[in-house]
Amino acid sequence: MSVAAAANQHPASATETDPESLGWMKGFPPAPDRTVAFQDGSFRSFPELRWAWSNIRQLVPTVNVWRGAGPASVLSREDQDIGAVASVTMDGRPMTFAKMLEETYADGIAVLHQGKLIYERYFGALKPHKPHIGMSVTKSFTGVLAGILVTEGRVDPQAPVTDYVPELKASAFGDARVHEVMDMTTGLEYTEVYTDRNSHVWGLRRANGMAPIPPDYDGPTTIFDFLVAQKKQGEHGKAFAYKTVNTDVLAWIIRRASGMTLSDLLSERIWTPMGAEEDAHYHVDRIGTESGGGGLSTTLRDLARFGETMRNHGRFNGRQIVPSSVVEDIARGGDPEKFKPAGYTTLPGASYRNQWWVTHNAHGAYMARGVHGQGIYVDPKAEMVIARYASHPVAGNAANDPVTLPAYMALAKALTAGG
Amino acid sequence: MSVAAAANQHPASATETDPESLGWMKGFPPAPDRTVAFQDGSFRSFPELRWAWSNIRQLVPTVNVWRGAGPASVLSREDQDIGAVASVTMDGRPMTFAKMLEETYADGIAVLHQGKLIYERYFGALKPHKPHIGMSVTKSFTGVLAGILVTEGRVDPQAPVTDYVPELKASAFGDARVHEVMDMTTGLEYTEVYTDRNSHVWGLRRANGMAPIPPDYDGPTTIFDFLVAQKKQGEHGKAFAYKTVNTDVLAWIIRRASGMTLSDLLSERIWTPMGAEEDAHYHVDRIGTESGGGGLSTTLRDLARFGETMRNHGRFNGRQIVPSSVVEDIARGGDPEKFKPAGYTTLPGASYRNQWWVTHNAHGAYMARGVHGQGIYVDPKAEMVIARYASHPVAGNAANDPVTLPAYMALAKALTAGG
Repeated sequence: MSVAAAANQHPASATETDPESLGWMKGFPPAPDRTVAFQDGSFRSFPELRWAWSNIRQLVPTVNVWRGAGPASVLSREDQDIGAVASVTMDGRPMTFAKMLEETYADGIAVLHQGKLIYERYFGALKPHKPHIGMSVTKSFTGVLAGILVTEGRVDPQAPVTDYVPELKASAFGDARVHEVMDMTTGLEYTEVYTDRNSHVWGLRRANGMAPIPPDYDGPTTIFDFLVAQKKQGEHGKAFAYKTVNTDVLAWIIRRASGMTLSDLLSERIWTPMGAEEDAHYHVDRIGTESGGGGLSTTLRDLARFGETMRNHGRFNGRQIVPSSVVEDIARGGDPEKFKPAGYTTLPGASYRNQWWVTHNAHGAYMARGVHGQGIYVDPKAEMVIARYASHPVAGNAANDPVTLPAYMALAKALTAGG
Repeated sequence: MSVAAAANQHPASATETDPESLGWMKGFPPAPDRTVAFQDGSFRSFPELRWAWSNIRQLVPTVNVWRGAGPASVLSREDQDIGAVASVTMDGRPMTFAKMLEETYADGIAVLHQGKLIYERYFGALKPHKPHIGMSVTKSFTGVLAGILVTEGRVDPQAPVTDYVPELKASAFGDARVHEVMDMTTGLEYTEVYTDRNSHVWGLRRANGMAPIPPDYDGPTTIFDFLVAQKKQGEHGKAFAYKTVNTDVLAWIIRRASGMTLSDLLSERIWTPMGAEEDAHYHVDRIGTESGGGGLSTTLRDLARFGETMRNHGRFNGRQIVPSSVVEDIARGGDPEKFKPAGYTTLPGASYRNQWWVTHNAHGAYMARGVHGQGIYVDPKAEMVIARYASHPVAGNAANDPVTLPAYMALAKALTAGG
């Protein structure tokens, strides 16, 4: 607890908060001051979350994403010691790739170059076979699944959302189009301020099972009930605004269009053909609905496999898993003018397209991003994919980007020069 | 709900309560009268439990039992249509093997003869790759893990329980020996009456995470706190009395003796070397403790692999997984005189040894048994193993035994004659 108290002033470092050396959840039973639990909310505190994000399944109900019965696809290896690759942070400090990982509380990092795994490290409570929660990285999987259904003609981006989910008629989504939830350009009253417990995102968390529900709570206790209650504010289609409920609506469209749960669809369309090494899982609400906006946990290597699938225009493990048009549409990006008003100072000139963040930098890099520093970074020009899990004390990528993004771009440059 | 109401008079049949055809948890969201949830306790109602026992992970937090990175061991097949094998129930009705499965709400059955899978069927909500909860079948895994540690000299059956768990000093287990919890001959106030919500077993369920905790509840909310509060009644070592807390104490002894969680120990000692096909999982309490007395879910085939490991004196997948002495000690059985007072009319002459039920019949069969009809039946003489998952409406094997046991013995006889 003294560690947590100190964190309120200046977060303790990754080394100081290593869940293994601190002994979180060690012993039978673990000591009260080393116990991480759901009901008391401690799993969201720092440094408890450094254990929790690698152990979601022990905290909340989940549904499996089966990897199928086949062998795992081979990730060929060609170790390169890239830890010393130098960069300069956005605020001008000299940095190395290895120091970047420590400074941004990485739990694991896997770097692929030209399809080969050149660097893989684990920290904190993460192990190669253990799933780590991706949080908003989940959204990028949801977007790709939606894209697959679009190419099959089962989802029409121009159609009203209510064509798929008529129950949303009276909600904010009653006059929204599918592409507006894909690109998050809906106008919603909903707010997503992680540090404010009165923000709507906390209502979503109570509804989707990732926050305890107080005994006298009379708000929605399922994702569906939460979505139906969303109110409109402003106009749809005008500007990007990052709001997780869009992805949960998109996930609902996917379920209705495919007739499948999100977990079964991900298993059938991606996890099995990709030759994932381990099952993944989503946390679910009280009636078994996956959190399509934030609930996916995967191993680091399987996250890397998915990133590599994207880099290869949807092809991996000897087959076309995602239609290339879906990948290219994402890589091309959205409208930077609609993105600009959102004010992401660490992402100048970027856009948001079908649940992916597109840099529009010289390498055409695009990203999946989770709020504690989880992510996939695909750099087509450098033929590089970075998959990363993390448990940064600050919920917001403004805390990671100034250190991680220059390091990624420096690595891309070094690999391009070396190749 | 009309189905459930009908069940109170005369339980609807397995076909009538098939969770797939009834549409339990189908649709997005599922209809209110087809929703199975934890918080409202509906997962324990019939026929809801027919869905729930194959989907525990969606209802409660769990911890994974990793199968390792290797290939699954091969279960060679030699299909035999044994469905028509005839038997006579204990109450004199003619029966067939196939009809027995229907009448006792089997969710899946796998029969091995001389190491070959000769019969495998799935019903209800179960699929080959999905784990089903074993409930008290879990105990037999805990017993075998304890047996392994005994042969390694890390657990002494003659030692006081408090040598391993000193915190139990003031509890009923304060003057108990390890072998008394292994064989369930402790004298405890604790009662295990599944149909009586005031029975202590319901307190254990609230503590271990398998029953909702009412808002004003002031009882123990972790397994450990529940065990520490147990009171003695009668004498230890005199008679067998089936009480799950013994197994939870044994699980605690195992954790302390091995320094490992039950899930990691099961993974390392059995699941990985056995070449399990899928990960298993335990449900956990609010602080991550596995229910060692009832929380294990496995696939049917992996349950069959474990049964075959036992039949082969601990050898499977090309290696000695369980020391043969552990298996032989179980197969030899306990003291039928200590078992008799418990009054199991369907198990005349039987005994209980290290968390297994030993028939002492002419074939020397022994069993792992779960309360809704889950089980492993090992028949050494017939070289037969039956693994079975079920969701019988009645919580108690007195509802299964009169139909299942004669069918198992008839099949054993038929296979012996045929070989």
